[in-house]
Amino acid sequence: MSIQFERVALIGIGLIGGSIARDIAALGLARQVVVSSRSPETLKRAEELGLGTEYVACAAEAVKDADLVIVSVPVGASGAVAEQIAGTLKPGAIVTDVGSTKTSVIAQMLPFMPPHVHFIPGHPIAGTEKSGPDAGFVGLFHGRWCILTPLPETDPAALAKLKTFWETLGSRVDEMDPPHHDKVLAIVSHLPHIIAYNIVGTADDLETVTESEVIKYSASGFRDFTRLAASDPTMWRDVCLHNKDAILEMLARFSEDLAYLQRAIRWGEGDKLFDLFTRTRAIRRSIVEAGQDVDAPDFGRHALDKK
Amino acid sequence: MSIQFERVALIGIGLIGGSIARDIAALGLARQVVVSSRSPETLKRAEELGLGTEYVACAAEAVKDADLVIVSVPVGASGAVAEQIAGTLKPGAIVTDVGSTKTSVIAQMLPFMPPHVHFIPGHPIAGTEKSGPDAGFVGLFHGRWCILTPLPETDPAALAKLKTFWETLGSRVDEMDPPHHDKVLAIVSHLPHIIAYNIVGTADDLETVTESEVIKYSASGFRDFTRLAASDPTMWRDVCLHNKDAILEMLARFSEDLAYLQRAIRWGEGDKLFDLFTRTRAIRRSIVEAGQDVDAPDFGRHALDKK
Repeated sequence: MSIQFERVALIGIGLIGGSIARDIAALGLARQVVVSSRSPETLKRAEELGLGTEYVACAAEAVKDADLVIVSVPVGASGAVAEQIAGTLKPGAIVTDVGSTKTSVIAQMLPFMPPHVHFIPGHPIAGTEKSGPDAGFVGLFHGRWCILTPLPETDPAALAKLKTFWETLGSRVDEMDPPHHDKVLAIVSHLPHIIAYNIVGTADDLETVTESEVIKYSASGFRDFTRLAASDPTMWRDVCLHNKDAILEMLARFSEDLAYLQRAIRWGEGDKLFDLFTRTRAIRRSIVEAGQDVDAPDFGRHALDKK
Repeated sequence: MSIQFERVALIGIGLIGGSIARDIAALGLARQVVVSSRSPETLKRAEELGLGTEYVACAAEAVKDADLVIVSVPVGASGAVAEQIAGTLKPGAIVTDVGSTKTSVIAQMLPFMPPHVHFIPGHPIAGTEKSGPDAGFVGLFHGRWCILTPLPETDPAALAKLKTFWETLGSRVDEMDPPHHDKVLAIVSHLPHIIAYNIVGTADDLETVTESEVIKYSASGFRDFTRLAASDPTMWRDVCLHNKDAILEMLARFSEDLAYLQRAIRWGEGDKLFDLFTRTRAIRRSIVEAGQDVDAPDFGRHALDKK
């Protein structure tokens, strides 16, 4: 693989930043990789893991001379980062992010971006329930989609360069306008996480069923939800606060549909239940056919269960 | 392994019945295994797969001379099966089931059970989203819990025998009273499935986000739900109808909690969100520590993804 950027600055080095760092190193895509984190522990750990070539606490310092700046912080922190790095960004640098909401990130970062840089917001649709620099791994983005939400004034050459970068990491790249991205993500990602957090909270609060029973018998469905509900609290708090409108719309629809289902259960309307439960099967099939999930029963974890 | 029953009758031969059949054969636990299904296609397929030693369409015929009868049908069909087999059950036979609801199964089956048999309801907490005789496999019950809900008059020797049978299949066996079983399962299994079906239905109905977008970007959380929502529609319709009270109670609590969460999002109360999202992490940790789920990120499916 050949060098795509002389110097890359990674602002934030958790699961996503840490995975990008590992891919860059594994593929030899940059000569220098500056890692920055506002948390001294995280920065120290990144250095122990050898994720970059330099480690600096100050984001403004980190982006100096960088050709590519990737901001991988909880979306609520992106405005502050933009403000910090604005004055030291190199002319012609590409500045991107990996945040799960785009309208809010643009609103926070764009006002600080000097005209001499290419600001191209992005969102790799990849991750696990783990967080922190240790959670990252080579290949996280492989076979996953990355959505870029370029602005009307975005330079096509810079966009092409960023697209190539993500493709080299194994991603398939799509472009979308920011509000549409936020709606799509509200249903495929934000609502599922909120629902998962909610049901795990409901179970935790029961008086008639003990917590140890919930844990013991979780393999019957509940455990799937606990995985999502183990995701990073700061990241997800910020997502909820920064994609509020789309999330509230999806929540309202979800609750409406649930009320319909609840009524069908109360009145014993088996045909309505059967119709819904049949329709949803087809969607699973399409997801497996599209290569977006494994077809192995139980996500293939049965084999791991037996260990 | 040694013979535990001369003759076993399996009434219903889907994922659960088919897995029991395979385990019995693999472990040599019975001399004869009669397989019965009211569906001619399923019975034919079971024979092609060699799941038993005899195949009969008529359940009444199948249970003749059987020492152990295992009813593995959707819970809504258990009353009809009980009525069919009542007259031909062998004196001293153990009759059990694998249904996900227990109060309703007992109400349906007990009136037909002759005094000369041992009726011991049961529920192995195991399964996948697949259904039918092809979906079964050796080891499905390994390391999983099996809940028996014996009745006050249950013979201890028969209970011990059934317990040993499940333990031989690798299960850990618990006893519970039927209403408590139904409450526990409502939260750990029934509610998660209903929520999963519901969210997949909500996504399918959107006008602003296309179905192909939902499928493409499903890896960001949604796909977890589609697995549960691909479960057998008949089985789940019956569960909803037959554990109505406990499910409606859990649904009411879930909706209440969701309204609280929704309000916190609307009013930007980040601390409430952060508190919940932190609390749920601990439950995930306990489930992994209890050996009820794998700790591998993303259920370990990342490796399978890359294929």
